[in-house]
Amino acid sequence: MANYSAPLKDMSFLLKHVADSRGFDQIEHFADYDDGLVSAVLGEASKFAGQVLSPLNQSGDVEGCHFNDGAVTTPQGWIDAYQQFCDNGWLGLALPEEYGGQSLPRFIAAAVHEMWLSANLSFVMFQALTQGAAEILLTARDERLKQRYLEKLVTGEWATCMSLTEPGAGSDLGNIRTRAVPQENGTYLISGQKIYITYGEHDLSENIVHLVLAKTPDSPPGAKGVSLFIVPKYKVDESGQCGELNDVRCVSIEHKTGLHGSPTCSISYGDEGGATGELVGEENRGLEYMFILMNEARLSTGQQGVAIGEMGYQRALEYSLERTQGRDALTGETNVLIARHPDVKRMLMGLRAQVTALRALSYQIASRLDLAEVESQDRAAHLRFVALMTPIFKAFSTESGNLMAGTTIQIFGGMGFVEETGVAQLMRDIRVTTIYEGTTGIQANDLVFRKIQGDQGEALKELMTDIETDFAKYIALDIAGCEKEMLAQMIEVLNESVDYILQQGKAGRESLLCGAVNFLELMGVACCSWMMMRVAVAAYEQKAHSSDTAYLNNLIALSRFYFAHFTPKVLALHKTVITAEAGIQDYQIEE
Amino acid sequence: MANYSAPLKDMSFLLKHVADSRGFDQIEHFADYDDGLVSAVLGEASKFAGQVLSPLNQSGDVEGCHFNDGAVTTPQGWIDAYQQFCDNGWLGLALPEEYGGQSLPRFIAAAVHEMWLSANLSFVMFQALTQGAAEILLTARDERLKQRYLEKLVTGEWATCMSLTEPGAGSDLGNIRTRAVPQENGTYLISGQKIYITYGEHDLSENIVHLVLAKTPDSPPGAKGVSLFIVPKYKVDESGQCGELNDVRCVSIEHKTGLHGSPTCSISYGDEGGATGELVGEENRGLEYMFILMNEARLSTGQQGVAIGEMGYQRALEYSLERTQGRDALTGETNVLIARHPDVKRMLMGLRAQVTALRALSYQIASRLDLAEVESQDRAAHLRFVALMTPIFKAFSTESGNLMAGTTIQIFGGMGFVEETGVAQLMRDIRVTTIYEGTTGIQANDLVFRKIQGDQGEALKELMTDIETDFAKYIALDIAGCEKEMLAQMIEVLNESVDYILQQGKAGRESLLCGAVNFLELMGVACCSWMMMRVAVAAYEQKAHSSDTAYLNNLIALSRFYFAHFTPKVLALHKTVITAEAGIQDYQIEE
Repeated sequence: MANYSAPLKDMSFLLKHVADSRGFDQIEHFADYDDGLVSAVLGEASKFAGQVLSPLNQSGDVEGCHFNDGAVTTPQGWIDAYQQFCDNGWLGLALPEEYGGQSLPRFIAAAVHEMWLSANLSFVMFQALTQGAAEILLTARDERLKQRYLEKLVTGEWATCMSLTEPGAGSDLGNIRTRAVPQENGTYLISGQKIYITYGEHDLSENIVHLVLAKTPDSPPGAKGVSLFIVPKYKVDESGQCGELNDVRCVSIEHKTGLHGSPTCSISYGDEGGATGELVGEENRGLEYMFILMNEARLSTGQQGVAIGEMGYQRALEYSLERTQGRDALTGETNVLIARHPDVKRMLMGLRAQVTALRALSYQIASRLDLAEVESQDRAAHLRFVALMTPIFKAFSTESGNLMAGTTIQIFGGMGFVEETGVAQLMRDIRVTTIYEGTTGIQANDLVFRKIQGDQGEALKELMTDIETDFAKYIALDIAGCEKEMLAQMIEVLNESVDYILQQGKAGRESLLCGAVNFLELMGVACCSWMMMRVAVAAYEQKAHSSDTAYLNNLIALSRFYFAHFTPKVLALHKTVITAEAGIQDYQIEE
Repeated sequence: MANYSAPLKDMSFLLKHVADSRGFDQIEHFADYDDGLVSAVLGEASKFAGQVLSPLNQSGDVEGCHFNDGAVTTPQGWIDAYQQFCDNGWLGLALPEEYGGQSLPRFIAAAVHEMWLSANLSFVMFQALTQGAAEILLTARDERLKQRYLEKLVTGEWATCMSLTEPGAGSDLGNIRTRAVPQENGTYLISGQKIYITYGEHDLSENIVHLVLAKTPDSPPGAKGVSLFIVPKYKVDESGQCGELNDVRCVSIEHKTGLHGSPTCSISYGDEGGATGELVGEENRGLEYMFILMNEARLSTGQQGVAIGEMGYQRALEYSLERTQGRDALTGETNVLIARHPDVKRMLMGLRAQVTALRALSYQIASRLDLAEVESQDRAAHLRFVALMTPIFKAFSTESGNLMAGTTIQIFGGMGFVEETGVAQLMRDIRVTTIYEGTTGIQANDLVFRKIQGDQGEALKELMTDIETDFAKYIALDIAGCEKEMLAQMIEVLNESVDYILQQGKAGRESLLCGAVNFLELMGVACCSWMMMRVAVAAYEQKAHSSDTAYLNNLIALSRFYFAHFTPKVLALHKTVITAEAGIQDYQIEE
C-alpha cells in the first residue's frame, strides 16, 4: 500500500483561513504559534507519519497481534515505532510541559493527530487514551496520583487503557459488576471481568496503567454508584518505580474484522484475590471522570472518520490517475484515465469535499477548546459549542468515514476487493468507529435530549446564528449557481427541525427517539455545509492575496459541489425527522 | 453463525399477492404452479439452504480456497454440497426439461435463488453462471454445441465460468487482447490472460466449460470485434466425453476481503501453443451473446443484495431479542432487550422494509420475464420493463445490501466487529456486488442513456403509469398518516427528474453523467416505494380473507415506515440530479 502523505496545504489553509484558529496569532496566549512554528510542527509530523507509521499499516494488518498465555505481542515494527513516537515527544504534544509534554494548542494537535490516524489507525490508538487519562488526572486535582503517574504517561514510559465494558455492560455502564473493596491502607482490591479493552495488554511499554470502572460495596445502584480506579499492571512502589506484578491478567484478544494491529483484550482482575487499585478522585464519581476521557475519545474517534476518508481519497486519486479504462463520454477518446470519467470525478470530489468539511469542523472544535482556555468571558459559550458538536462530529464523521471507505473501494473496482491493494483494510478498520465510544444511536440521543432539549436549545441557537452569518457572507460573493437557494432551504428546514425538537414534550419523546439518528445526520450535513461556506468565503478572499488561483478556485468548486451533492440530504432528513414515528408504534417486533 | 431460515411466509405473500405472479394460476401455461406446488418447492429449497448450505458458510469463509500448482481446492464440504445440489436438481431448476432441467417459471426460481444466496453466497456463485451459459447456448441455436454441452451443464456434471476480464480490460471489454486463431478443422487456438474469473478452476466438477471472449485476427477494433468461444478445461471428444487436458491453466487465485469460499482465478490460455476453442454463434457477436449471460448475472447480483439483507435481518433480529442492555427510554425499565430501544427497532424495521421492497421488485421482474414467454401481444412491453429494471435493481439492491450489512453490524455493536459472530462476513462478502457484473456507475449510464434516452422514455412512461395506478389504490385505503403527501411528492419529483433527463441533448450530457448514479438511486427508492404501496394494498385486502391480522398489520406498518424513512430520499436525489454539474466542470483533478 502506498505511503501516506499529509495534505499539508489543505490543513494549513483550514487552520489559517477557515477555523476560528485563524485569529490565533492575534491572541497573546497563542502569540508563539505563528505560521512558521505551525508549519514546522506539521512538517515534522508529516514526515513521521509518512516514513515511520504508514509503512507499518498494512504489514500490521496482515500480521495482527499475537496472544500467548497472557502475553500480547504487537506486530513487527510496533515497538520501535512506539519508542520513536515517544522519544520525539509526539505523545505529549498537547499535554503540559510540567509533566514532560509540549503544551501545544489543540488546533495544532488536531492536525497532527489526524496524520497519525490516517497513517496507521491501529497503531496510534494508545495516543488518545494517554491524552484522556492525563486529562482525568489533571482535572482530578490529586497531587499524589499526578506525581506518581503523569510524567510516566506523558512520556510514554507507561501506557494506559480504558477498562469500562463488561459482557453485560456496554452502552449501559451503570450495569457493571466489577467490585472494588477498600483496604485499610487506603487502596482497593479490584475484581471482575472487562472486555473490549483497547491496548489492555501489549509489549510496548514498561507498565500499563489501567483506568478501571468498578463499584464499591455500599455504592448506590446504577450509574451513580460507579467509581474510577487506577490499576497498574505492575504495582508502583514508593519510589514510583515498577514493582511486583498486580493481579491483572489478559485472558484473550479478539479476532476482529479490522484494526488487527491494535490488541482488543479481555482482562480479568483479581483472579488471585484482588488487584490493587487506587481511587481516582472521589467514590461514585467515576462516570463523571470517565466522561472527560470519553469526550476526548469521541473527538478523536470523529477524527478517525476524517483520517480514513483522507487516506481513501489519496489512494483513490493516485489510482484514478494511473488506471486507464473505457472511453471519454464526451470526446470519444479511448483508454482514458479513469479520473476523466465524470462519475469517477464525482466520487473523487465527494471524498475530498466531505473530508475537507469534516476536517474544518474538527479544527473549529479544537479552536473553540483552545479559546475556552483564554477567553474567560466566552468560556461557557465555547464549551457549549464543543458539547453540542461532540456527538455530531463523532457520529457523522464516522458514518461518513464508512461511506468514504466504500467509495474508495468503488473507485478501485475489482482491485478494491483484493486485499493486496490495502483499500479493503480501510473499510474493515473504520467499521467499528460508529460503535465504540458510544454508538451513533447513543450520540443521537445525547444530541437531542442532553445537548438540545437539556439547555433549551441555547447552544443550538448560537450555532444557527453563526451559520446564518456565514451564509450572508457566502451569498454576498460573486459566485454563480443555484446552490444559494439550496443553502437558504437548508437553513429553513434546520430551523423547522430544531423547533420541532424543542416543542416535543414527554408525549413526543418516542417520535424523537425514532428520528434522532436522522436528526443527527441532518445536523452533520448542515454543519459541514456551514464549513464549506466558510471555505468558499476564505478561498474567495484569498484570491486577492495569492497567486495560487487554481488551488483557490478548486476549493470554491468543491464547496459548490458539496452544496449540490450533500446539502440536499437535509430535505430528506427533515422529512424523516418530523414523520419518524410512522409505522413504528404499530409494528410488533415479535409477530 | 446461526443457520439461515428462509422467510417462507414473506416470500409466499409477495409471490401470491404483490408481484404480477399473483395471477399466474389464471394463465394456462402456468396452471400447474398452484399454491401447493410452489410451497412444496420453496419448502424443500428452504431445508436444503438451511441444513446443507448455511452450515458451510462461515467455515468456508474461515478456510477459504487453496491454490497449489494450478489446482484449486474448495473449502471442506463444498464437493459434497455441490453433488447434492446437482443431484436434487436445483441447478437446472429454471432450465429446460429437455436437457435435464425442471423448466420451472422464473418467479419460483427467483425465490429459490435468493435462499441459496442468503445461505451461502460464496458457494452458490456457480449457479448463475450455469443458468446464463445455458441460455447463451439455447439462444445461439447451435445444435451441435447444445448436444455437446447443455445436458452436462444443466446437470452440473460440468461447470462453467465467464472468462471476460483482462488486466487492461474490465469495464471496457472492447479492449481485450486474448486472441483466437482459426484452424483448418473449424476450431480456434485461443491464447491470452484473463483475471477475476469466478470458479475458473476448482475441484467440484469433472470438467469446466470456459466461455471466453477473444478476438480473431482480422476482427474490427473495439467491442464490435469480440467473439465468444467455448474452451473446455478438458477437451471433449467425439463421443462427448472428457478427453485430454486443454491448454488452460489457473495461474493464481485472489486473496479477497470477502467471498473466500468462491475461487477468483487468473487463467492463462495457450501457454503451450494455444487452447482449443469452439466458436459460439457467429464471429464478432461475442459481446451480444455475453450480454444474455450478463443480464442474467445482473439480476442474480441484484438478488445478492436482498439475500445478504435478509441474512443480516435474521441475525440482527435474533440478537436483539436475546441481548439486554440499557433502560427503556419511555418506561424507565432497566436491562431491557435491545429490540425495545426505538433506534434499534428503527434499524430492524429498516432492514425488513428494504428487504421486502427489493424482494418484491425481484419477483416483479421475474414475473414479467415469465409473462413475456406466454403473452406474445405484451411481450415487448414486458421485456422493456425488465430491461429498464435490470440496471436499477442490480445497482440499487447491491448498494442497499452494503448499507444493510453495515446496519446489521451496528445492531450487534462491538460483537459485530468480532469475526466469530459472522456478521462482519456479510459486509465483506457483499462489498464486491456493486462492482462485478458492471459497477454502479456503469448501471447508471446504462439506465440514463440506453434504457431511458435510448427509447425516448417509453418504458419509463409505462412504469410511471403503473406507479400512479398503484398510488391511486394506496391512497384510497383507509390508512392514516402523512405519508400520502410524501408519495404524491415522490411522483412529482420523479416526473420532473425524468423530464429533465429526456430534455437533455448533447450539451446536457456531462450534467447527466455527473448525476446518473443519483438518478439511479432515485429510481431505486421510487420503485421500492411503489412495491411497498402494493404490499400495503395487498395486506389491506387480505385482511378481509385472513385471520392473520398481526402479520398483515405489520406489513402495512412496514410500508408506512418505508414512506417515512426511505421515500423522502427522492427529494434530495432529485435536487442533486438537476444540479449535479455544480462545481464539477470548474474543478481540476490535478492541481
